[in-house]
Amino acid sequence: MVDLEQLGQQAQQASYTLGLLSTAQKNQVLTAMATALTSHQDEILAANAQDLENPQVPVKFVDRLRLTADRIQDMAIGLKQVVSLPDPIGNVDRAWRNEAGLMIAKERVPLGVIGMIFEARPNVTVDASALCFKTGNAVILRGGKEALHSNQALVQVLRGALRAEAVDENAIQLITDTSHATAAKFMQLTDYVDVLIPRGSARLIQTVLAKATVPVIETGAGNCHVYVDKDAQLQMATDIVINGKVQRPSVCNATEKLLIHREVAADYLPSMIQALREQGVEVRGDAATQAIVPDVVPATDADWGTEYNDLIIAVKVVDSEAAAITHINRYNTQHSEAIVTDNYQAGKLFQQRVNAACVYINASTRFTDGFEFGFGAEIGISTQKLHARGPMGLAELTSYKYVIDGNGQIRH
Amino acid sequence: MVDLEQLGQQAQQASYTLGLLSTAQKNQVLTAMATALTSHQDEILAANAQDLENPQVPVKFVDRLRLTADRIQDMAIGLKQVVSLPDPIGNVDRAWRNEAGLMIAKERVPLGVIGMIFEARPNVTVDASALCFKTGNAVILRGGKEALHSNQALVQVLRGALRAEAVDENAIQLITDTSHATAAKFMQLTDYVDVLIPRGSARLIQTVLAKATVPVIETGAGNCHVYVDKDAQLQMATDIVINGKVQRPSVCNATEKLLIHREVAADYLPSMIQALREQGVEVRGDAATQAIVPDVVPATDADWGTEYNDLIIAVKVVDSEAAAITHINRYNTQHSEAIVTDNYQAGKLFQQRVNAACVYINASTRFTDGFEFGFGAEIGISTQKLHARGPMGLAELTSYKYVIDGNGQIRH
Repeated sequence: MVDLEQLGQQAQQASYTLGLLSTAQKNQVLTAMATALTSHQDEILAANAQDLENPQVPVKFVDRLRLTADRIQDMAIGLKQVVSLPDPIGNVDRAWRNEAGLMIAKERVPLGVIGMIFEARPNVTVDASALCFKTGNAVILRGGKEALHSNQALVQVLRGALRAEAVDENAIQLITDTSHATAAKFMQLTDYVDVLIPRGSARLIQTVLAKATVPVIETGAGNCHVYVDKDAQLQMATDIVINGKVQRPSVCNATEKLLIHREVAADYLPSMIQALREQGVEVRGDAATQAIVPDVVPATDADWGTEYNDLIIAVKVVDSEAAAITHINRYNTQHSEAIVTDNYQAGKLFQQRVNAACVYINASTRFTDGFEFGFGAEIGISTQKLHARGPMGLAELTSYKYVIDGNGQIRH
Repeated sequence: MVDLEQLGQQAQQASYTLGLLSTAQKNQVLTAMATALTSHQDEILAANAQDLENPQVPVKFVDRLRLTADRIQDMAIGLKQVVSLPDPIGNVDRAWRNEAGLMIAKERVPLGVIGMIFEARPNVTVDASALCFKTGNAVILRGGKEALHSNQALVQVLRGALRAEAVDENAIQLITDTSHATAAKFMQLTDYVDVLIPRGSARLIQTVLAKATVPVIETGAGNCHVYVDKDAQLQMATDIVINGKVQRPSVCNATEKLLIHREVAADYLPSMIQALREQGVEVRGDAATQAIVPDVVPATDADWGTEYNDLIIAVKVVDSEAAAITHINRYNTQHSEAIVTDNYQAGKLFQQRVNAACVYINASTRFTDGFEFGFGAEIGISTQKLHARGPMGLAELTSYKYVIDGNGQIRH
């Protein structure tokens, strides 16, 4: 069993020095990391081959696990993109003088030590390390056992770049013991870890939420709805539903449910369902949908709360916008929801009443993404309300500190 | 056992309507609550008398538990102060158009349902209810068993005002079953409760952190230090230490430790310790302090991590500012720390390197307080880095939502 206490102490110690680096220093290190990835490509690919040779790796993991020269190049490009992003650390959100004459400045600081828990995607190792480093955070990575050799090779390269630039290499550490017992202990390392960010399947995230005593940012579950209002432009609705469902069905901002106002259902559903089927989508429907398009797969109660992450959609006819909102607030994961309507009131009501990180009028749910939002990066998409909600970029990896200048004030 | 599921559902349902109330509507309800407290004073005092008659109430709880006509009046005044505060809900932090042409607005929304866990102070019932209501949050209160009758009477009055103003009375609910089993279940009510805020002893807060699966905002522990630098104005240092230690020793922003630079220790400590003793403070000291003032109580290792909340202070002589910073970052609770110095570099270095919510130059740690900061209210002082740090006012009881207007955008 690895000594997590020691790992934690080392990370905390590193975090104190990271917070003091200038933006220029951090960018220089990130650039060095990009160069090192390219120059150590062979070792990384060799380690990755070891992972891929493991007969216990499930077939479905192979694609996300496989590294190639191109993919390593993409990682290096990703690092350089992080270089180009503005550094939020040291920004002052606001400053004011209080009644006693103290000057109070609310200044952005790193969170400290971030724990990343993820599965078999080695690119997360590099992405997360870069974003944490740019924001002055130390990171402890706990990736899936299937990617262990790849992650070790990548982390060794990144740490080599840190050493070469005279930065504490414990800014980036990997937990090489991938047992569940060690993971559980990691989730309770409250003395040293400031926040845990799990990335991966719903099951992984639920496990972390259940076991962690370190504060967690819940990410990723997306049971996203499109509600087609009676005043929708129907072609626009079709485009938005098809885009949401088909463009990349495996991701969390994909559309999983279609709600449609009863007044337009009979005219609209046959062509809408036809369009979905042409894209290879399995369409499930409630009783009203079945009455209009008899050959849909009957939807069960379990469908409404399910995130398929696949070419499946469930359709429900609703009597009103209010019914659509009630249904969404009951079954959604507070990720992304959309209404298609030309009615101003209907659109604004939907945005106001739907409980989700991102609420769209007349746009695809697929836009919920740090890059699409213009953040230039994304560490995950938060589905909780505490700290950060929706796409998380660099700003969401910061905390703040009140820096207060006085001249002898005491309280009366 | 109370039906927590039902309580949670009711709170969530209420929260959906609360988020839609205008500031004027919320202020009218808060004003009605203030009036109702005054007009129901007799019932409240009678219920409080029941609590006070309980022979099992520890003597130390009696003062904080006791209500009087004046204290009820103070609660009503507190409600009216909350009326006068600006409402953060609906504010747009920023809005921008992304590359695809979507208008994205980051809008302040309520957190949803807040769980407050506290001890025997009935005033928390009214304070927390007012702050949660003003920010459109439903609140579920779990107060200490010693204050149950008082809390029931207060909540009944507040709910009466909600009903009279045609607002869902489940905006404010009290858990009347004060068993530990019910409290533990409450801390895991993730389907309905968005955040837990514990207020009270370190033991209470640690219990909540250990048991909760609902996100927690950790509050209140304050092992606060004053470091007297070699370039300090010594009279200013004495004033700041005395104020921090003596003005209200039981609270979390009281000064608990004095660190002093070796160069000035011998000249300064005798008068400083004398001044503390004149205020009735027990002074404990490390070996170096004992060498200067032989009759101090020897400090043990346990002292450095202890929050006394009492007229006790521990003194340590340090070789340098760096040693002071290292000591503080090792033992503090990330609450409030102060340096006394006339050296610009020393002051700025301290603010940059000390890991705490509030870092002061030349001011008393006692200023860490929502009212002193000018927030006009305080729900607690966060000692974590996630979501909120330091004094939490109304803004810290909000989350945000991205409200996104399109005209048919799909992702390419």
